Amino acid sequence: MRIGFIGLGSMGAGMAANLIKGGHEVVVWNRTASVAKPLEALGATVAATAAEAAKGADVVHNMLANDAAVREVILGSVLEALPRGAIHVNHATISVALAEDLASTHEARGIGFVSAPVFGRPEVAAAGNLNMVVSGKPEAVAKVQPLLELLAAKVWPMGDDPVRAVIVKIGGNFLIGAAIESMAEASALTRAHGVEAKDFLEVMQNTLFASPVYKIYGGMIAENRYEPVGFKLSLGFKDVGLARSAADAKRVPMPVASVLHDAMLESLGRGDADIDWAGLARVAAARAQLKD
Amino acid sequence: MRIGFIGLGSMGAGMAANLIKGGHEVVVWNRTASVAKPLEALGATVAATAAEAAKGADVVHNMLANDAAVREVILGSVLEALPRGAIHVNHATISVALAEDLASTHEARGIGFVSAPVFGRPEVAAAGNLNMVVSGKPEAVAKVQPLLELLAAKVWPMGDDPVRAVIVKIGGNFLIGAAIESMAEASALTRAHGVEAKDFLEVMQNTLFASPVYKIYGGMIAENRYEPVGFKLSLGFKDVGLARSAADAKRVPMPVASVLHDAMLESLGRGDADIDWAGLARVAAARAQLKD
Amino acid sequence: MRIGFIGLGSMGAGMAANLIKGGHEVVVWNRTASVAKPLEALGATVAATAAEAAKGADVVHNMLANDAAVREVILGSVLEALPRGAIHVNHATISVALAEDLASTHEARGIGFVSAPVFGRPEVAAAGNLNMVVSGKPEAVAKVQPLLELLAAKVWPMGDDPVRAVIVKIGGNFLIGAAIESMAEASALTRAHGVEAKDFLEVMQNTLFASPVYKIYGGMIAENRYEPVGFKLSLGFKDVGLARSAADAKRVPMPVASVLHDAMLESLGRGDADIDWAGLARVAAARAQLKD
Amino acid sequence: MRIGFIGLGSMGAGMAANLIKGGHEVVVWNRTASVAKPLEALGATVAATAAEAAKGADVVHNMLANDAAVREVILGSVLEALPRGAIHVNHATISVALAEDLASTHEARGIGFVSAPVFGRPEVAAAGNLNMVVSGKPEAVAKVQPLLELLAAKVWPMGDDPVRAVIVKIGGNFLIGAAIESMAEASALTRAHGVEAKDFLEVMQNTLFASPVYKIYGGMIAENRYEPVGFKLSLGFKDVGLARSAADAKRVPMPVASVLHDAMLESLGRGDADIDWAGLARVAAARAQLKD
Repeated sequence: MRIGFIGLGSMGAGMAANLIKGGHEVVVWNRTASVAKPLEALGATVAATAAEAAKGADVVHNMLANDAAVREVILGSVLEALPRGAIHVNHATISVALAEDLASTHEARGIGFVSAPVFGRPEVAAAGNLNMVVSGKPEAVAKVQPLLELLAAKVWPMGDDPVRAVIVKIGGNFLIGAAIESMAEASALTRAHGVEAKDFLEVMQNTLFASPVYKIYGGMIAENRYEPVGFKLSLGFKDVGLARSAADAKRVPMPVASVLHDAMLESLGRGDADIDWAGLARVAAARAQLKD
Repeated sequence: MRIGFIGLGSMGAGMAANLIKGGHEVVVWNRTASVAKPLEALGATVAATAAEAAKGADVVHNMLANDAAVREVILGSVLEALPRGAIHVNHATISVALAEDLASTHEARGIGFVSAPVFGRPEVAAAGNLNMVVSGKPEAVAKVQPLLELLAAKVWPMGDDPVRAVIVKIGGNFLIGAAIESMAEASALTRAHGVEAKDFLEVMQNTLFASPVYKIYGGMIAENRYEPVGFKLSLGFKDVGLARSAADAKRVPMPVASVLHDAMLESLGRGDADIDWAGLARVAAARAQLKD
Repeated sequence: MRIGFIGLGSMGAGMAANLIKGGHEVVVWNRTASVAKPLEALGATVAATAAEAAKGADVVHNMLANDAAVREVILGSVLEALPRGAIHVNHATISVALAEDLASTHEARGIGFVSAPVFGRPEVAAAGNLNMVVSGKPEAVAKVQPLLELLAAKVWPMGDDPVRAVIVKIGGNFLIGAAIESMAEASALTRAHGVEAKDFLEVMQNTLFASPVYKIYGGMIAENRYEPVGFKLSLGFKDVGLARSAADAKRVPMPVASVLHDAMLESLGRGDADIDWAGLARVAAARAQLKD
Repeated sequence: MRIGFIGLGSMGAGMAANLIKGGHEVVVWNRTASVAKPLEALGATVAATAAEAAKGADVVHNMLANDAAVREVILGSVLEALPRGAIHVNHATISVALAEDLASTHEARGIGFVSAPVFGRPEVAAAGNLNMVVSGKPEAVAKVQPLLELLAAKVWPMGDDPVRAVIVKIGGNFLIGAAIESMAEASALTRAHGVEAKDFLEVMQNTLFASPVYKIYGGMIAENRYEPVGFKLSLGFKDVGLARSAADAKRVPMPVASVLHDAMLESLGRGDADIDWAGLARVAAARAQLKD
């Protein structure tokens, strides 16, 4: 198939590569063109504009950074450039409100719209082992399913409303943040009673909570080291904001999300915007007057 | 060794059985004697009083229900009956304050004291596969280590202060409650946007959060079924209280514990004291005006 | 002076009337023209458009409903229509972000901008007894001071940055909401122990908390009657949102604002959007399983 | 009447003096006897023990510090020493649980029990201008009413259950703490946007919130001066604890009380136990990274 891929950040580059390796004709675009070089070497065509990457495509994927970028690039030019009947697959973590806008605008233009946000880090994306939640019109999803399988170890179907996969992604990121804050508070409690965070967390990580989130983020909290950064605290703050806006829209009180928001605000105020969001744990420790 | 075992509830009975199977001479006692019968069949001696179970013992284990029972039985008669140089191993989930009292009273009486609270359910206890956190004087811990290994798949050493294993157990139970409340809020959010709890939680349980706690409790929330009961909401409320008291004692602010406490109060008010504590999820759903 | 007055709701109408009675030439405009009739009788000229009310004015006041209305009407046409050197006085409760936009857009157009939000209810506005907080460039404020004194019992100067009066208004409304939630929780506590809300609140209102907010809102909670409506719950929710956005912008954690937000979400979900915001008390009572 | 007065702290001494001036025969007792001297000069008899102050008394008042002191002194010796038919009036701020114990133990001993906690500071107590909430058996209350009127500007009847006046006092102190935390958060918000706390609070104190609590505590926050101490932060923490225990007993979720508790824990951790509890405001400022 003729595929356009827009947004070649640490996640997108690996995803585009897997589509190329899958034998598809891929035209890529990224704001800073330089990052497209390695893909060109793999056989991708590099477009000068996002519209050019969309022109004549059967399917366009985007892995852009946030709502603003999706609004500007997709609503700004890609949707216009796509041929009727083409499909747009959004992998970015966006707001429920934007997902609703995209669904109706695509509908009006006769373009298929598939929500396919992903769980996984850059190396997982590069290996084609992402976990992907997907929702959209059955026929549109069916058409892109083979492409999604080139990107993901598992594709989790979430039904025909594009909003569904989006809220699952948002809910998942909230759960990660809640786990970080919970580990942070529990570690402050055990530290205050003489147990080192690593000794407490090691038990949790290998028994009740033996899972990627508790191992990865708990490991950072155990060592109180928040670099190298897996996911920036400022991005985590943005995603908790997406959960809170989605909750407000449907009148869903989420007190843990409020606690998380207030702790993250304090982290940002302390100047921790660019460390891994596990660094949120510094706030719980500081509130308990524990030394870093 | 000559061992006394006090408290034969759903956890204690299986633990005592494993000590008997280990080839030890075990004298058991339980407030309601009837539950001791099966152990008698395995070769245990049934004592008429807790003191009698302690008399002449090298080691006495207890798996009593709470602080009140431990104070009454252990401080009330067992400590008095134990020969100097004997060791008392506490498996019950107790408060930090009581652990501190026990440490000093045992010290004064020349009795060794080992904290060895456990993570695991009755079937796990019966199989001798508990996860056990242990702390106490090295020589005392060394003496009972072979016994602990008859009860646990793994023994996690926490150092020489009996309080340490206690706070790790308390911190672990707080983490479970926090995970339940977090899943409850996230599920209310996704449900409000059209995704069934089971569809959202299935992804979490098999990816980011693939761990016993998210599988067991998430499974109950997914089905909105809180029976059969693994751990009663009223007991979870008690344990969150232990975390909050321990936090107050060391001036550790724990906002998630506060949110958890307030939600559990609402559950108890609704009449849910006797369902599994995953049933806490009903509060988040009710606050969001979602039907059960 | 030649004055334009835009926005003739329950507050604006009374304010405009006081400017007319003050002997000024007032041109009024309101989206639904009918409400302008009584002012015409007092001597006001009714404009067909907001721009017309602004044309040739020395000063234009607005008492519009919210950010959206101010953006549409003021930025959409009034600013364009005002003669250079004129002054725009904003009495509406708006966001800090909009206040910053207005300050720079007015500056660029050579129009003076004065923030003058008010505390008080319609009858107080009609009597010219509002409490008004004012900030803006000293010369602009000085020019409109005589007009402001026709509207307010007291004008509280807040300095030269238009944002300052806005944040004082937002902070004040947050304090009212916090007082309502606090009275709601305290009343639920005392009711649960056998004391009627009115008996508890009567003591508070006449001793420690003898002030308008505790008398007016406490009175509604005491009787559990939330009509007639002084200030709609949905508007209170909007204003708490203004406080939270302003807090986010400067990284100010406000846990009470978070509690307030979550309780208001629950009120809205219950269908209480149109009762007085003291009706928030129903949530605290419901959470405590108290009958209305 | 023959009156015993127990507990001559900064409040009790002034109250005892007013009973003496009222022409009653007053026998006083205080743990540290020295403080009784000035009352002896006014005509009081100084007892060597609390029991001696109770012996032969028609009425015994106590203004002891807390539950522990009341349990030790009243249940420990005074109740025993009082003649059947005598009345004990408790002015101390105690827990609901203790009030229930006292009601039944007094009943069993044939002693009348009246709850009469007070609102007011030492100088107000000395002037006999306290606000006093009273509950207990009508005949008992009627008998002591003339005495209470010597102590209070106003006596607020709360019915026949001694618990009622206690919960009103506890609810009132919670409301004060909630007002302090609310002012602290609002001031941090306005400060972060360039308005000094005193400028914001001055408007509140003289308009919407013109009441003793907002003036006294708001005044301290405005100046960021928490000495001289009106009410110690550590005592405020104790009283918020009484509210939370009473709420737990009746399953009343109080999220603002939880926020208040967590903020006070942080204050205590910072070393602020002995400043006025308005000093809680330092925590909101620190969380927002504002300089003291």
